[in-house]
Amino acid sequence: MKIATLRLPDRTVAVRQDGDTYTEIADLPDVGALLRLDGWQEVAAAADGERHAVDGADLAPVVPTPGKIVCVGGNYRSHIVEMGSPLPEYPTIFAKYTDALIGATDDIQLPPEDAWIDWEAELAIVIGTPGRRIAPADALDHVAGYSVLNDISMRGYQFRTNQWLQGKSWEKSTPLGPALVTPDEVDPTARIRTVIDGEIVQDSTIGDLLFGPREIIAYLSTLFTLRPGDVIATGTPDGVGFAREPKQFLRPGNLVETSIDGLGALRNRAVAEAR
Amino acid sequence: MKIATLRLPDRTVAVRQDGDTYTEIADLPDVGALLRLDGWQEVAAAADGERHAVDGADLAPVVPTPGKIVCVGGNYRSHIVEMGSPLPEYPTIFAKYTDALIGATDDIQLPPEDAWIDWEAELAIVIGTPGRRIAPADALDHVAGYSVLNDISMRGYQFRTNQWLQGKSWEKSTPLGPALVTPDEVDPTARIRTVIDGEIVQDSTIGDLLFGPREIIAYLSTLFTLRPGDVIATGTPDGVGFAREPKQFLRPGNLVETSIDGLGALRNRAVAEAR
Repeated sequence: MKIATLRLPDRTVAVRQDGDTYTEIADLPDVGALLRLDGWQEVAAAADGERHAVDGADLAPVVPTPGKIVCVGGNYRSHIVEMGSPLPEYPTIFAKYTDALIGATDDIQLPPEDAWIDWEAELAIVIGTPGRRIAPADALDHVAGYSVLNDISMRGYQFRTNQWLQGKSWEKSTPLGPALVTPDEVDPTARIRTVIDGEIVQDSTIGDLLFGPREIIAYLSTLFTLRPGDVIATGTPDGVGFAREPKQFLRPGNLVETSIDGLGALRNRAVAEAR
Repeated sequence: MKIATLRLPDRTVAVRQDGDTYTEIADLPDVGALLRLDGWQEVAAAADGERHAVDGADLAPVVPTPGKIVCVGGNYRSHIVEMGSPLPEYPTIFAKYTDALIGATDDIQLPPEDAWIDWEAELAIVIGTPGRRIAPADALDHVAGYSVLNDISMRGYQFRTNQWLQGKSWEKSTPLGPALVTPDEVDPTARIRTVIDGEIVQDSTIGDLLFGPREIIAYLSTLFTLRPGDVIATGTPDGVGFAREPKQFLRPGNLVETSIDGLGALRNRAVAEAR
């Protein structure tokens, strides 16, 4: 099953996608609200509300206001090698605020303060069932589904200090979507790609993750309760602009396509933000 | 004016403090909801609801669910020197999730996974008026008030990787309160202290901040919109346990008192958390 958050002129609404049609899931403003319901799968599957065409739809971030967005850094073997780092013993984690999120076809704002704006295609885990100190063997029971996120990174600010947050959470920079896809439809070795103006710049498989969803959920839930709608961005494979020779960064007008096979694609235009 | 969020048996409520009495601010569940109102100062000042004794009150975190909690690291000249670091050109920032917050007299949970649990007394800025790319000269107009926060830090996890987040956001570890105090009542050179079981371990003045509220607000609002109820923890002075010789960490039963003159005190008992 695929569910999404659709923007309408006067409201947003959680919808189920069936082929080229979205069906409204009654009275639920977004996927975050849906996931807080007991038996949300049955509610979504049974929904029979107003219908909308997928083609041309205006999507919000699939979960517009997660309680937490947790990002894992350096988590693909290939990207760790490209950055010249040893394989880590523990996951590296940092945060992103909800103000950063945009929808699947929204513009990515390129702020005038940083010229080194980079892409990072990522598999996003969306939590469905809350839990603390979850055992790895039980971890996948807590997953509502998966989605695609591009952890757009302002490298100038990211590397101003030793803490990356200030390069990782610029307003309206991080597309999340297009849909939440339930685990039964997700291939654990699916291809993950970033394509800029038709040029493939990242091309890997989510099977190359060093810490997979089980290990990440177990680790993070040691620290705090994971809750319905929480989003975990699991890290990016090799091919980021900062590691290219010469370095390559986003320019106004670039079309950034971020996809995972079976999960769909984000298609975002990079635009220069007014100061 | 001092405002707080009071826990009652069946609800929480925003209250104004006058001496030893709290007065309910009608129909507002917490200070975060109050700050989202236009003219919140007038609403709070005019409130004439039910009254409660300050003595023995059960306080929630002053803003229980901020949209963002932003922490500044290494921001007292004395603490930078103690950690052996040069004075920085830019503020170092990292995040904390709302699950970490506790009230002014709640227990601090000491998780069994980390034995190196440390204190960090901090001045907290609470945002009142939203803004993006705020000029330093205008920054204080965006402040609703100030409060006290202890950025309890699990040093083992903090230093497992180069990103501090995993030591900074354990569940129910971070007291915030007791009140939001409006800027007119705050001395910019007020004394800030941590006292453990009667022993003074941190004793400085908020006048020693390297980046003050003006600079921090201007810097952070470059990245994203600051919104009513957002909390900024501004960093800690010298005297943390990790930098002591020998190192000193919290033990079950310790009473942790964190205070800033004029802003009040947090009094939290450290307790061993069951796994």
